[in-house]
Amino acid sequence: MRKEVRIAGFGGQGIGLAGYILGKALALYDGREAVMTQSYGPEARGGASSANIIVSDREIAYPFVQQPDILVAMSQEAYAKYYPTVRPDGLILIDSDLVTPKDVKGHYFIPATQLAEDCGRRIVANMVMLGYFCVVTNLVRRKAMEKAIDTTVKPKTRALNLKAFATGTEFGTRELSRS
Amino acid sequence: MRKEVRIAGFGGQGIGLAGYILGKALALYDGREAVMTQSYGPEARGGASSANIIVSDREIAYPFVQQPDILVAMSQEAYAKYYPTVRPDGLILIDSDLVTPKDVKGHYFIPATQLAEDCGRRIVANMVMLGYFCVVTNLVRRKAMEKAIDTTVKPKTRALNLKAFATGTEFGTRELSRS
Repeated sequence: MRKEVRIAGFGGQGIGLAGYILGKALALYDGREAVMTQSYGPEARGGASSANIIVSDREIAYPFVQQPDILVAMSQEAYAKYYPTVRPDGLILIDSDLVTPKDVKGHYFIPATQLAEDCGRRIVANMVMLGYFCVVTNLVRRKAMEKAIDTTVKPKTRALNLKAFATGTEFGTRELSRS
Repeated sequence: MRKEVRIAGFGGQGIGLAGYILGKALALYDGREAVMTQSYGPEARGGASSANIIVSDREIAYPFVQQPDILVAMSQEAYAKYYPTVRPDGLILIDSDLVTPKDVKGHYFIPATQLAEDCGRRIVANMVMLGYFCVVTNLVRRKAMEKAIDTTVKPKTRALNLKAFATGTEFGTRELSRS
């Protein structure tokens, strides 16, 4: 089992933090191998940001993401850029407040920015997205994610981040039970 | 030319952000190849954090840091853990407010936390450290670092981050002119 995940959006959305937390949950609290890489393409110039996570049951020798199994897109630009790189059977999670998709096949939608605002701050849309990710992909245990959030974010923002994460899982559970 | 840099400390110090900014400065504004990796060892459990940057003139095939040429240590725990991994001729930069070194050979000291507090917020000790790094190592151009900071941090914290960075460069310039 080797899965490639790419989380992409623009600067200030906490893309790197989301990637770090996902990798930490997998590696420290879910018993997998995980590496997060940050490569700098010219696209980073415009304020774009991406975090690339490899998760595997074995040691990871080649940590670069080439064809993501899962793409999380939090901006239209990121979506347009990385949509063509996703595996044919891959999953694409998008913030429907910010991204208009080209297709619906394999796509999962969540109004993450709006839900984050409902939690109190737009800045935690990344955590809403991680909650949704958790339910849709089944790649990582919810408890592992909560622990990774808990041990990573600043203590004074912990409650807000966990609330946003829970909001994303609840939205995902509701949506999946409908379909 | 291939150099390995490890920045390490504890969670909440903005270690990942510092690593991201250094890689971005090198790759986007200094014409080098750079990759930042985040590996998750058991040490991340205790709230430790590290960012690993490879910089090269050629494409980077193997992005894992093994023997850093440069270690930036912002906690005693990180220093104790990674000090033995540094190359014999390597450089070690430490926050002297937080780390008591075992040795002085190859070591460079800066009271980064204190200087950050003087700038207004302890949280920008990472930027003070990057400013000092810039002067001591000569690995990256100052202008490239400033641009990377400018295009990465949130607009409302930009002035504070750039001030902290400048404080680190000024301290470095003063110290090196003395020696």
